[in-house]
Amino acid sequence: MNNFEYYNPTRIVFGKGAIANLERLVPATARVMLIYGGGSIKRNGVYAQVKAALGARAVVEFGGIEPNPAYESCLEAAELARREGVDFLLAAGGGSVVDATKLIAALVPFTGDDPWQLFVQRGVVMPVTALPFGAVLTLPATGSEMNPIAVISRRETREKRAFDSELIYPRFSILDPEVTFSLPPVQVRNGIVDTFVHVVEQYLTYPADAPLQDRQAEAVFLTLIEEGPKALAHPADYATRATLMWCATHGLNRMLACGVPTDFATHQIGHELTAEYGLVHAESLAVVLPALWRLRKAAKLQKLSQFARRVWGVDEADPEQAADQAIERTVAFFHAMGMPTRLQDYGINAEEAARVISTRLGTRALGERKDVTSDVAADILRQA
Amino acid sequence: MNNFEYYNPTRIVFGKGAIANLERLVPATARVMLIYGGGSIKRNGVYAQVKAALGARAVVEFGGIEPNPAYESCLEAAELARREGVDFLLAAGGGSVVDATKLIAALVPFTGDDPWQLFVQRGVVMPVTALPFGAVLTLPATGSEMNPIAVISRRETREKRAFDSELIYPRFSILDPEVTFSLPPVQVRNGIVDTFVHVVEQYLTYPADAPLQDRQAEAVFLTLIEEGPKALAHPADYATRATLMWCATHGLNRMLACGVPTDFATHQIGHELTAEYGLVHAESLAVVLPALWRLRKAAKLQKLSQFARRVWGVDEADPEQAADQAIERTVAFFHAMGMPTRLQDYGINAEEAARVISTRLGTRALGERKDVTSDVAADILRQA
Repeated sequence: MNNFEYYNPTRIVFGKGAIANLERLVPATARVMLIYGGGSIKRNGVYAQVKAALGARAVVEFGGIEPNPAYESCLEAAELARREGVDFLLAAGGGSVVDATKLIAALVPFTGDDPWQLFVQRGVVMPVTALPFGAVLTLPATGSEMNPIAVISRRETREKRAFDSELIYPRFSILDPEVTFSLPPVQVRNGIVDTFVHVVEQYLTYPADAPLQDRQAEAVFLTLIEEGPKALAHPADYATRATLMWCATHGLNRMLACGVPTDFATHQIGHELTAEYGLVHAESLAVVLPALWRLRKAAKLQKLSQFARRVWGVDEADPEQAADQAIERTVAFFHAMGMPTRLQDYGINAEEAARVISTRLGTRALGERKDVTSDVAADILRQA
Repeated sequence: MNNFEYYNPTRIVFGKGAIANLERLVPATARVMLIYGGGSIKRNGVYAQVKAALGARAVVEFGGIEPNPAYESCLEAAELARREGVDFLLAAGGGSVVDATKLIAALVPFTGDDPWQLFVQRGVVMPVTALPFGAVLTLPATGSEMNPIAVISRRETREKRAFDSELIYPRFSILDPEVTFSLPPVQVRNGIVDTFVHVVEQYLTYPADAPLQDRQAEAVFLTLIEEGPKALAHPADYATRATLMWCATHGLNRMLACGVPTDFATHQIGHELTAEYGLVHAESLAVVLPALWRLRKAAKLQKLSQFARRVWGVDEADPEQAADQAIERTVAFFHAMGMPTRLQDYGINAEEAARVISTRLGTRALGERKDVTSDVAADILRQA
């Protein structure tokens, strides 16, 4: 097991009717900016519940945060927050809204010249303070509700990048599974695949003498595989929705990454596909992952065969064949969730994508051994 | 799944050489009280590492914290801390030292009349502030390093009670598996059994539509069962020790309790056995648990048979027989760890213990349905 540090001060308030807790969670004298997306919160009742719980607090609204939230929108929101003297942010939405809120929290007091350096020089240029904020989650998928990471897209340059800081942990996140009943099936599908891939990226590398973390990851896989089909079949089944929501949080609250190597290459190549071709985040992951596994099978053989045996119940002594079966079973699961797994399903030419994306990746080296160069990424995309 | 709230701001710093991080984790200007137990930290090198990392900081020492830490010692330590103007506490030891430090942190600024009311009126009389403190863990077992609970024994009245408060989370806990190499086998055994029982108490109740939490608990069981024998056979195997240490933290960082019923009756009856007969904490648990399961089998049948199938690999269709096998397998595991499971192993008459302990429990009602009255506890002890 590798040395590690784990710190996660986000308070999770989970369950039916949990939004009412805003009343005690948001400081009584706060001047709040309520940040949301395309307005679904006004249709599904979340907006009304939030406003009721905030009571007499002064609220400035900033709606219209995009899927793959735009850097430009965050700059605009931060400007408004400064002008209005806002001292607390409240995100109401999915991972995009939470991620945007994290960046806005860092931007409001930011005094450097160029905030994009937070992303380009991640870990070097760091915020020194941030506004406090909380979240009301409406779409379980990204785990952003309990981590210190924001993924932001810059429209001007078609870049999609991440930054992280302990200052951008939500003070609290409210998770009411009932607000997910009205999600369209395609968003349920996206959340399940996104969670699944997050867990893969913290598990499917090389053995690292971390049997507890392995089994904790397998716990999430097994649960997603059991509960995913139920959620699509019975959208208003509370227990299933609650479990999927809690799975998504565990997918990326970073506990699974404690002491183990990680391979976020699928996400990083996927981000480029989203930035270039506009694929939805989870769609990009489902396209990249199986191709990456096929190409990197030798390097991941021990974990792939463990995954085959423990998660998919594959009874096959030959590790290569077990790995192949695990890949097929995973692809079949994605398909059963309604998720395509090929670039051609989106009318994208794999050869062209390989060329374009490898150029975008430039000299970046990805993967648990930093050996997924842009050439390797090109090979992955040719097989996607 | 039940509604829940989860908040855990303790920073875990895990790995080889981690004690050196005290230099950055303890405020540079702190006036520190270093709290420890019987002095094993002076023999195993922890004391020297701690002192080196604290550098020029002013340090007051308070040694001699007992196993089952004494309320009376905590009062004395708090008095000394006040007299010396201490503003930061540092525990170096096992769960007893960490628990004592939690109480001392609450006692130093306590202004009420009778601090024992924190225990007797748990959740009603609460601390309003506490000194900040950190921990260097030397014995993985209780999970105290990442939870807000202190279990304290009052010598004067032979009571053993718990209290909890968000104010008594450690600011940080340092977990270096290498410091556990020199533990005697009996303490390794105790830590494994304590962890196992913590997980049981958050899992083995009635089904609560919480499949993720079930599998997360099973992850810890499976890991303990695999790694426990290795730790006894190869005391200096780093990977095994690291895994057991991380298992113990997960056993009671309260994540497993999210959204599910819990049954801490084994601990509560065990505390009385310790207070009355001086059994070591883990010994008391290993005596109570199998008897409790046998008596409460019907109420716990569904979970016991799931436990049999998933954790022990029992292939038995009849739930009753599966449950019986799970109980036997668990007892055999405790024995393999070197842990007795009968009162008579300690020369205690079960009939007498039933009478004495049920009197001590009085009107308290334990268990996931609050139906383990003192009479039921007496029946459990008769079978122990």
